[in-house]
Amino acid sequence: MKRLWDKGEPLDKRVLRYTAGEDYLLDERLVPYDVRASIAHAKMLCKQGLISAEDSQAITNGLNALATSHAAGEWKITLEDEDVHTALEKHLTDTIGEAGKRVHLGRSRNDQVLTALRLYMLDAAGELHKSALDAASALKKLGKQNKDVALPGYTHMQQGMPSSVELWANGFAAELEDDANNIVSALQRADKNPLGSAAGYGTPGLELDREFTREALNFTVVHEPVTAVQLSRGKAEAALVFELSLLMQDLSKLATDLLMYYTQEFAFVKLPENMTTGSSIMPQKRNPDVLELVRSAAATINAALLEILGITTKLGSGYQRDLQRIKPPLFRAIDLAGASTEIMVQLISGIKFLPENIQLDPSIYAAEKAYQLVTNEGISFRDAYRRIAAELNNDE
Amino acid sequence: MKRLWDKGEPLDKRVLRYTAGEDYLLDERLVPYDVRASIAHAKMLCKQGLISAEDSQAITNGLNALATSHAAGEWKITLEDEDVHTALEKHLTDTIGEAGKRVHLGRSRNDQVLTALRLYMLDAAGELHKSALDAASALKKLGKQNKDVALPGYTHMQQGMPSSVELWANGFAAELEDDANNIVSALQRADKNPLGSAAGYGTPGLELDREFTREALNFTVVHEPVTAVQLSRGKAEAALVFELSLLMQDLSKLATDLLMYYTQEFAFVKLPENMTTGSSIMPQKRNPDVLELVRSAAATINAALLEILGITTKLGSGYQRDLQRIKPPLFRAIDLAGASTEIMVQLISGIKFLPENIQLDPSIYAAEKAYQLVTNEGISFRDAYRRIAAELNNDE
Amino acid sequence: MKRLWDKGEPLDKRVLRYTAGEDYLLDERLVPYDVRASIAHAKMLCKQGLISAEDSQAITNGLNALATSHAAGEWKITLEDEDVHTALEKHLTDTIGEAGKRVHLGRSRNDQVLTALRLYMLDAAGELHKSALDAASALKKLGKQNKDVALPGYTHMQQGMPSSVELWANGFAAELEDDANNIVSALQRADKNPLGSAAGYGTPGLELDREFTREALNFTVVHEPVTAVQLSRGKAEAALVFELSLLMQDLSKLATDLLMYYTQEFAFVKLPENMTTGSSIMPQKRNPDVLELVRSAAATINAALLEILGITTKLGSGYQRDLQRIKPPLFRAIDLAGASTEIMVQLISGIKFLPENIQLDPSIYAAEKAYQLVTNEGISFRDAYRRIAAELNNDE
Amino acid sequence: MKRLWDKGEPLDKRVLRYTAGEDYLLDERLVPYDVRASIAHAKMLCKQGLISAEDSQAITNGLNALATSHAAGEWKITLEDEDVHTALEKHLTDTIGEAGKRVHLGRSRNDQVLTALRLYMLDAAGELHKSALDAASALKKLGKQNKDVALPGYTHMQQGMPSSVELWANGFAAELEDDANNIVSALQRADKNPLGSAAGYGTPGLELDREFTREALNFTVVHEPVTAVQLSRGKAEAALVFELSLLMQDLSKLATDLLMYYTQEFAFVKLPENMTTGSSIMPQKRNPDVLELVRSAAATINAALLEILGITTKLGSGYQRDLQRIKPPLFRAIDLAGASTEIMVQLISGIKFLPENIQLDPSIYAAEKAYQLVTNEGISFRDAYRRIAAELNNDE
Repeated sequence: MKRLWDKGEPLDKRVLRYTAGEDYLLDERLVPYDVRASIAHAKMLCKQGLISAEDSQAITNGLNALATSHAAGEWKITLEDEDVHTALEKHLTDTIGEAGKRVHLGRSRNDQVLTALRLYMLDAAGELHKSALDAASALKKLGKQNKDVALPGYTHMQQGMPSSVELWANGFAAELEDDANNIVSALQRADKNPLGSAAGYGTPGLELDREFTREALNFTVVHEPVTAVQLSRGKAEAALVFELSLLMQDLSKLATDLLMYYTQEFAFVKLPENMTTGSSIMPQKRNPDVLELVRSAAATINAALLEILGITTKLGSGYQRDLQRIKPPLFRAIDLAGASTEIMVQLISGIKFLPENIQLDPSIYAAEKAYQLVTNEGISFRDAYRRIAAELNNDE
Repeated sequence: MKRLWDKGEPLDKRVLRYTAGEDYLLDERLVPYDVRASIAHAKMLCKQGLISAEDSQAITNGLNALATSHAAGEWKITLEDEDVHTALEKHLTDTIGEAGKRVHLGRSRNDQVLTALRLYMLDAAGELHKSALDAASALKKLGKQNKDVALPGYTHMQQGMPSSVELWANGFAAELEDDANNIVSALQRADKNPLGSAAGYGTPGLELDREFTREALNFTVVHEPVTAVQLSRGKAEAALVFELSLLMQDLSKLATDLLMYYTQEFAFVKLPENMTTGSSIMPQKRNPDVLELVRSAAATINAALLEILGITTKLGSGYQRDLQRIKPPLFRAIDLAGASTEIMVQLISGIKFLPENIQLDPSIYAAEKAYQLVTNEGISFRDAYRRIAAELNNDE
Repeated sequence: MKRLWDKGEPLDKRVLRYTAGEDYLLDERLVPYDVRASIAHAKMLCKQGLISAEDSQAITNGLNALATSHAAGEWKITLEDEDVHTALEKHLTDTIGEAGKRVHLGRSRNDQVLTALRLYMLDAAGELHKSALDAASALKKLGKQNKDVALPGYTHMQQGMPSSVELWANGFAAELEDDANNIVSALQRADKNPLGSAAGYGTPGLELDREFTREALNFTVVHEPVTAVQLSRGKAEAALVFELSLLMQDLSKLATDLLMYYTQEFAFVKLPENMTTGSSIMPQKRNPDVLELVRSAAATINAALLEILGITTKLGSGYQRDLQRIKPPLFRAIDLAGASTEIMVQLISGIKFLPENIQLDPSIYAAEKAYQLVTNEGISFRDAYRRIAAELNNDE
Repeated sequence: MKRLWDKGEPLDKRVLRYTAGEDYLLDERLVPYDVRASIAHAKMLCKQGLISAEDSQAITNGLNALATSHAAGEWKITLEDEDVHTALEKHLTDTIGEAGKRVHLGRSRNDQVLTALRLYMLDAAGELHKSALDAASALKKLGKQNKDVALPGYTHMQQGMPSSVELWANGFAAELEDDANNIVSALQRADKNPLGSAAGYGTPGLELDREFTREALNFTVVHEPVTAVQLSRGKAEAALVFELSLLMQDLSKLATDLLMYYTQEFAFVKLPENMTTGSSIMPQKRNPDVLELVRSAAATINAALLEILGITTKLGSGYQRDLQRIKPPLFRAIDLAGASTEIMVQLISGIKFLPENIQLDPSIYAAEKAYQLVTNEGISFRDAYRRIAAELNNDE
């Protein structure tokens, strides 16, 4: 009997499907980066006298044309291509002929994959940085709009100290700005040129100029020695996802607060209509689905981080195919963190606080009163604390 | 400036894309299960006198027709549908009119989602069970084919005791059989009828027959009380993925052994040609990619398990939209474990052991010699052990 | 300069401290189990004619005496002992002389460790089972005591349907009973006699009776073949911790509900005085620390599960020292789940619901009204739903 | 019947044991840091005119004396103390009387805990940085000692390209240096003064000088606004453990390589005698236990990271007792990473490569030959690759 996942394909196709996995779909986003890297590599080969100027120009033009036609939706990577690298090399050879076969000189799939991935990560981190800052700005604006609105300051989910919407919003904003900065600085590990390390052991007998491609691709340093390059696989990826995990935690905590404020019992806030959805059975309800999905997105990103770490843990040195499995959790985390941050920018901008529903328990001023006793009477804080506590208990 | 993930869509579309997520794609596989569940529900409504026999029949026919046309590829769930449940209800109402609007009586999206998911999990577990047993059979066959081939028994990756290919293969086979059995028994948590719990609090004022749908859908028990149903979300899912994690660990360990046996230094085995791939830079190589991908698939499934657990941890009772995030890791784990097991069945069947390369170090018989000393001379094991150890050191 | 963790010890001591780790402390709890296993092994050796009846009796008496003196606190395992097994063998030889050196015949540290661990897990699971049932009972009692107290039924943290304290409590109770049962059935993987597998490859040239020790130790089956035994390391451990993870999730969700009910804004419950603690700065506060610690205990157990899975993933077959690292997360999970469950039994028993503070929003009956429309007017549920929704919107 | 974990204590003691957890043991290491922080706080209070110069001096002297007597082993934190903070305040008041009760003015346990923890983390990171650099140096020395020893360069665990011990060792050294640097820069999140944020909402009515304590404690910035401080809990902790996770991965990969090189089949290396241990049953064996334990230590640290992330995920803002659960995985990770790195420094220094056993397969030069063809004949790399591949296949 056919299994659920049995598509009735011959064995070779099944092996291909298993080994290529989702790569051909995931790699769509890497087309522009692999094009940039291959052009830099070709120009370097030319400069080193390893290919002719004509070939270098043909390769550059051919790849640029492919990037353009891909962006226009004229072709896609297929399962048979396996990945972006084979797809581009094949299309290039189809287009410009013989010269296309010369671009792989002094390069392995191993350093090629990593170069495209690092260039992509550097771009993605820049975008995520901006989104996180947008969320911080939205919060600061929300705080300013509600700067006269008092809010209980909770500890242990109990009213503890007087606070305000502005203080609450600015606390989150400060942490999001911190996240934004760390997303960029985490990229230090990705900011090293892997090109020229080839399969991980350099190119004996072939002189390449790694500094040339470094500069062309705008990496800060050349990744040295060549054996460090494959050893480092997964580290820059994990470092980015780790920062996204902290970013999402902050958004998740914000969602947790807002979900509580949005209960009928608190009723501290009104959410924008377009951020809530109806119920299939209870016609009266407006559910805060966006916030719930943001809250648990943090768990998905924690798991993506762990997935990457789990893939590289205990592997020996040198490239191993296991490393291909890093791409799905990396892209999943980037996409989810990006989408969640963007939607939160919109949501935050539409929150209305309802001051008429926000009640501060009178006991919330107990610490302040104890401070006054200390200042006025010169007694120790511990004694002041005990006196206030006794008074509060008598009131009950 | 547009961000990488900005598709330039209006806000409502972006909210929809965020909240629906991948559901409309993932839910393709749930069509037959939601059809079965809806038919059972409609028949129950009819039996309870809540809809007419004509409506019940129209619903049944309409849904069966939709299942058939879906299986034939005639329609797909769209983003605008959001999920399988809305898609089916919409198509049904389009097809059979008024009666289609009656099927949702006494049912919420909450119990409906869970019913389809549980029916699917029960099916998938059955398939995974069979695949795991196939892998066990392939190993036992491999052991039998090589029953005269000695193999060092390793501890600490050091030759420790004499062993054999058969003993090695049968060890894995036994554990895979254990995994197969546990996959099925883990489903105890999924084997409870959630229908009739509606949004999680039953259907006050509306008498449903939960035992009727239980029997129609072949669940072992009715999930009681209604408040337990949503509390249990993620538990059956995690239980299945946990078992897949143990299954994949066993396959991962098998891959680890084979990858070492396949090194030039060991050279204990030859892998089937179609399970190895070439190198982009080193023309001489046949790489064991399938085994490497299987080895790290275990890390992906560990992470999927953690993702599910992370989503439900700390949620309060009652349905929350967070639960939707369980579906991607669940399906990812099922698909990957299924595909990995199937490919390993093929790979195992093609392994050739190379007895001429397998050398057992003479010291491997030291424990056996110590046993003989004990038996022959009646000395204690500790004394025999010390004597053999001293002899071996003198030999060096 | 000395590092923080540098105790100025000579290298051999540092290696010992690194390799023995916390084992000597953790193993305290294994003393009675290793004694039982060693006695069973000795009796089997005697039955097989491999040691004399006198030696067997001396070993039995000696070990029983050591178990008694250990329970009385008269000796502890030291770092120099490394673990329970060496400690017992050493003390035994000190006490009964020559015969003590005979007990290790046909046994390796590998099967010995696993036997003690499995016996301990079977016991611990029994205790955890009982604790989970106690928590379920406490909840059912709480439900009965408050059986006339209405409670909003929440979905998306919004009041959705009418519910009651009893329905709420019984939902949790049912899931905890489910957890209790699964804790025991998860032990199927631990319930196999590993004794006689020795280092993982049996005892060539030495005839042991594995069925004898199986019966003596009350295992259900002999773990066969011998090579499966070490392959299985971590699986039974992970299976138990996985069930504890689900148990703790249920308790964590209960804590989440109660923490919300305990806010001043909800004020649905009063917690027992001895389960709350004061604040160091805000004299008025009674904080629900126990509930907060229970809530996050689930995260600790999820991590312990992942730790065990991470240790065994990608290891090859045969014993490897890595497996020693399984013990700390296993014991940590058992202790934390046990303590958390026990404290929750106490806490649940002291909860007071405050019906005067519990308000059900009138709109909560909307679904019920829609059902009535369907029943009374024979219109479809979707049309009834739309009418009720329109009415509710007009009311606003 | 008494449960395994039932110590027969009265309820209050059990609640204390549950809530204090291991804190009283873990906090031993925080004594000097809490002393420093409290002295800085007292001096600030004095400068602000909130306590007298005499009291400030008495507090400073008293705390310094307590730090000294604690370092000398004269007292320990007890369960009844709960944690380092209560212990010090209690001992201080016992010693210096009234003045001791004044030090808690304007401070909450919340900012106090965090200050001590951050000061400790900054110190620990410095030590870990040095240990990682030591390991890198040991590798570079090993590479230099073996600079003429060739080694196969593996990809997919297959001999792929010519390499050398020096290239292999220097690859690891470079990554360890990278880890060392990132450990320090990850501390940016810990390098902010939390003092003065009190319970998380500042000290209304009491003017503190946060800049004064910042400078006294050598933090780079004041953590602003006060609401950000508790929101950030777990982030600096996770950031440090994340870097330790990458550090341990590198050591784990090194261990994986060495464990393979140490097999009888490879026999590329001899390990130092004092880093291997004997077997309880096989007298001939020297097992590489240290390397195995290092290999899996990475899994333990991955889990500690996940534990921290899991604890803070989904928590709302403001201090919650859940945060106490961060300490055990944080300390566990620091201790294990420190000990593992230190032991590896020793182990690396004792490795002997055995060049006589290292064989490079002749086909390993295939890529180099293809490069020569390209250079000499001007053909494309792809054509050269195909020609070399054909030649190699004919040879077989």
